[in-house]
Amino acid sequence: MTRLWNEPENFADEMTDGFARANARWVRRVSGGVTRSTRAEEPTVSVVIGGGSGHYPAFGGLVGHGLAHGAAMGNLFASPSARQVESVARASEQGKGVLLSYGNYAGDVLHFTEAQDKLRADGIDCRTVTVTDDIFSAPAGEQEKRRGIAGDLTVFKAAGAAAAAGYDMDGVERAAILANDRTRTMGVAFTGCTLPGAAEPLFTVPEGRMAIGLGIHGEPGIDEVDIPSADGLAELFIERLLDSAEIPDGVSVEGARVVPILNGLGSVKNEELYVVFDRIATLLEDAGAVIVDPHVGEFCTSFDMAGVSLTLLWLDDELETLWRAPADTPAFRTGSVDTSAQVERDAIDDSVAEEVIPDASDESRRAAAVVVTALEAIVSVIDVNAEELGRIDAIAGDGDHGIGMKRGSHAALTAARSSHSNGAGAQSVLASAADEWSNRAGGTSGAIWAVILRTVGERLGNTAPVTAAAVADGLDGASTAVMDFGKAKVGDKTMVDALVPFAETLRQRVGSGDTLAVAWSAASTAAQDAADGTADMMPGMGRARSHGDKALGVADPGAVSLAMIAAAIKDVLPATSGL
Amino acid sequence: MTRLWNEPENFADEMTDGFARANARWVRRVSGGVTRSTRAEEPTVSVVIGGGSGHYPAFGGLVGHGLAHGAAMGNLFASPSARQVESVARASEQGKGVLLSYGNYAGDVLHFTEAQDKLRADGIDCRTVTVTDDIFSAPAGEQEKRRGIAGDLTVFKAAGAAAAAGYDMDGVERAAILANDRTRTMGVAFTGCTLPGAAEPLFTVPEGRMAIGLGIHGEPGIDEVDIPSADGLAELFIERLLDSAEIPDGVSVEGARVVPILNGLGSVKNEELYVVFDRIATLLEDAGAVIVDPHVGEFCTSFDMAGVSLTLLWLDDELETLWRAPADTPAFRTGSVDTSAQVERDAIDDSVAEEVIPDASDESRRAAAVVVTALEAIVSVIDVNAEELGRIDAIAGDGDHGIGMKRGSHAALTAARSSHSNGAGAQSVLASAADEWSNRAGGTSGAIWAVILRTVGERLGNTAPVTAAAVADGLDGASTAVMDFGKAKVGDKTMVDALVPFAETLRQRVGSGDTLAVAWSAASTAAQDAADGTADMMPGMGRARSHGDKALGVADPGAVSLAMIAAAIKDVLPATSGL
Repeated sequence: MTRLWNEPENFADEMTDGFARANARWVRRVSGGVTRSTRAEEPTVSVVIGGGSGHYPAFGGLVGHGLAHGAAMGNLFASPSARQVESVARASEQGKGVLLSYGNYAGDVLHFTEAQDKLRADGIDCRTVTVTDDIFSAPAGEQEKRRGIAGDLTVFKAAGAAAAAGYDMDGVERAAILANDRTRTMGVAFTGCTLPGAAEPLFTVPEGRMAIGLGIHGEPGIDEVDIPSADGLAELFIERLLDSAEIPDGVSVEGARVVPILNGLGSVKNEELYVVFDRIATLLEDAGAVIVDPHVGEFCTSFDMAGVSLTLLWLDDELETLWRAPADTPAFRTGSVDTSAQVERDAIDDSVAEEVIPDASDESRRAAAVVVTALEAIVSVIDVNAEELGRIDAIAGDGDHGIGMKRGSHAALTAARSSHSNGAGAQSVLASAADEWSNRAGGTSGAIWAVILRTVGERLGNTAPVTAAAVADGLDGASTAVMDFGKAKVGDKTMVDALVPFAETLRQRVGSGDTLAVAWSAASTAAQDAADGTADMMPGMGRARSHGDKALGVADPGAVSLAMIAAAIKDVLPATSGL
Repeated sequence: MTRLWNEPENFADEMTDGFARANARWVRRVSGGVTRSTRAEEPTVSVVIGGGSGHYPAFGGLVGHGLAHGAAMGNLFASPSARQVESVARASEQGKGVLLSYGNYAGDVLHFTEAQDKLRADGIDCRTVTVTDDIFSAPAGEQEKRRGIAGDLTVFKAAGAAAAAGYDMDGVERAAILANDRTRTMGVAFTGCTLPGAAEPLFTVPEGRMAIGLGIHGEPGIDEVDIPSADGLAELFIERLLDSAEIPDGVSVEGARVVPILNGLGSVKNEELYVVFDRIATLLEDAGAVIVDPHVGEFCTSFDMAGVSLTLLWLDDELETLWRAPADTPAFRTGSVDTSAQVERDAIDDSVAEEVIPDASDESRRAAAVVVTALEAIVSVIDVNAEELGRIDAIAGDGDHGIGMKRGSHAALTAARSSHSNGAGAQSVLASAADEWSNRAGGTSGAIWAVILRTVGERLGNTAPVTAAAVADGLDGASTAVMDFGKAKVGDKTMVDALVPFAETLRQRVGSGDTLAVAWSAASTAAQDAADGTADMMPGMGRARSHGDKALGVADPGAVSLAMIAAAIKDVLPATSGL
């Protein structure tokens, strides 16, 4: 929903003022919208676009060199008035005529046409090309009845580039018509948007459902389905847009050059769009098309509506030249300022050297098998508790502790199994587990668990006798290494609060003659008590960085997961009889 | 929330793949993230950035000429692993050393430092500058403890531009430290984001409330207040960021040159940001600062979190040169490809000629007073019913009919009053009301009401006798003009369905000798019946464009508002006794 405004009725005006003020390098405020703040060396045909506000970067964001000369910016989701269009067109006109281009909506047609009549009455050569790319707004045979959505961009770009290239009015008009004929868009939506000051969203889509064919003002779609996977959405887009009825005359998909524009309508974010794009690219290539200069991002939005559209611009040589021509506007910049050369793939070396497995004693290999068993126990206990760990982490942190521990422990187990099956000893198996835990988990906990596993491994070695004392010594070393690595001490309310008593208890009990299993059990209890205790303390520097100095009343998730893991390993340790 | 993924655990990898595929002009996928796909003519220091994913364009979107050389892209909201950082750094290194730069979070510090150790062990000159711009994450005296948020951009940009300018490693490091010392950011949030596959958002903020000082991973803020107005938020930002403790050493606000970066965290949209920016710009200027190259948009997000941050970069000459230097990356491009000249303000003529008020008869001026009264009645009835009109419009259309009618009728009344007080006759008053209705309302209904008012005015004139027949004739003409203008006929389920029977009934009843008031009453009833009837018909072409061919079971909002207005005017017509 929209949250920031002053008076709802002033929103569009204030937005336009702020937009022009922030983008003075490209645009200047005029009555009714904006015009360029720059001037080409030679006068050209002027391309004037426009429509309702709420679709940023459409329309003001597309004014600048190589694209539009002016944009009439109407009220929210309402066409600009004839006077606005006329005013912007007069400010943008350079003596070579004005091409008006906008999405095909009844209100826009009425007002732009009235403005066109007034300009023509003054002897200005004024033409109109409306954009009609939305495949679900009218049947394929009636393209002229379709509305304009994200395909606006390809038509405006073709017209703007043609004007910049010095085309006359006939030529600019022809380029815009050609681009429109070769542009198709399909959109879907998950939620509607709420206009400033409105109590209700413009429309709603049931939770978990997706509307197909929805317009950019909440016009109802043609169908509603369950939200598909990212790949499933890509497949739906491509199935519909490669339907033979939607392939423009003169285009054969096999070998065709095509620009895909994957557009977020507002609150579907780039990360999601890129996941969907990856599959779209594969599907287009599988169909034999050649992808040219793809665009992923926001090009025509509907405030914060959650929706996505895919536009395909089917190129010919002229359109490819026009599409690739430089443009420099507040929201659309293309044509590199970079003269540096493209690098061939082979020139990049991103390999990190693979480890060679060192020789190991049979005893160390047997210990390595126990390490694998212990990692299996870790994976089991973390899988069961990941959600709860995430929940307590979310109270003071970013809530990803469970996810990170799960990812790290699984990767560590896979690496340890592989290393063990290749004949590695205890140190090597722990080292490979450490590397993969850190590598897959990332984050603080991933780094710290890598330190623990690696340090224990260093004390065990690949050939030395494996004793309870060596294990206790390893954990003691890990405890010191973690404090050093993480710059944390006991009382900082981190996992150190549980690790230190664990290691100390283990060392004392092994030192006084307990078996490893008995000593571990006592150490595990100490760790659990300490972890519980982190809930009662004022947090210190360690976590204060991320949540301010508040006592939160929940245990530190790192300490909790350490205690959990200690307890889980306790249950598999009897298998190590003899230590 | 996040809706599009395949398997949540593969999200970050698939996102990075799709990102690299869509942006091959700038970046190339390597293990752990991306590196540039271009190479500068001469080797330079390499700037390697990174962090968790979910903050697009941070971090991959900032790789390219003039900015970063590589980005380590971790899992969602988790730092990249040491191996990822090392891999990206090795792929990006050019023999002149590597500057690592990233936000100051414990996990990132651990992994980047480990990678730095490995690079240094191989003889690579590797340095680190962490970003610490978030003013609410530690007190002003302890900037080194603060976390990095949207200020990442200024530090990365300074380092990248310094590298491109040929600075050596000492120089690049110094530039990055300088930029960090002179960058401050404050953030607020309205809602949290939900990670792919997660059942709950990372955090929540109560409806209508705003968290102050919230981090980009949902770390709790320092305070919570009611959501302010757009101006109020701007004032809050500036008050905090111009606090003397936050002004960097050596800077005096009066006369200082400053880059404001207003950043949307995900689902706060550009339109809102521009409204806020307008006030920020005024406040900065009022404080005596000089705004340089402002940026408004998304630079460091938190998925679709609804939040905003303001970053201020306090320039010196060197930082200004570095900030303005060209950059060309997937998501950040600056340095114009446009050689066209800036145009002086005076060179733009956007004026639309003002009308001169024609002479009018006393009789016509008295009729103009009735027009004003009628417009007052229109404003009253629309004000009361605007919400309901919006509701029925939202069923098939974009839900703005009520807002548009309100805006248009108010503007028309203001114009009519002004014109009347200047001595205008009926035609002139109606014409000025028509112009302003269209101009302020925009949209289809604005254009059509302008046609109605203007046509009636043309029949009444400014000097002709004002009779019931002239009014009826005017409405009849308006009915024809609207059908012609809107390309609609009776049965298309538009306001024409109500306007035509209204005008016909009025003409017949006046023709058979009724007074205007009596005839109008009958016509009004006919309009109401016809408006009700639009709910029962299959919609025709007129509205089919915007909602597909469905029978919707609700009346056309344009017909409803016309009937409503006809009824309201009926109640003020007795004042026109004598017609």
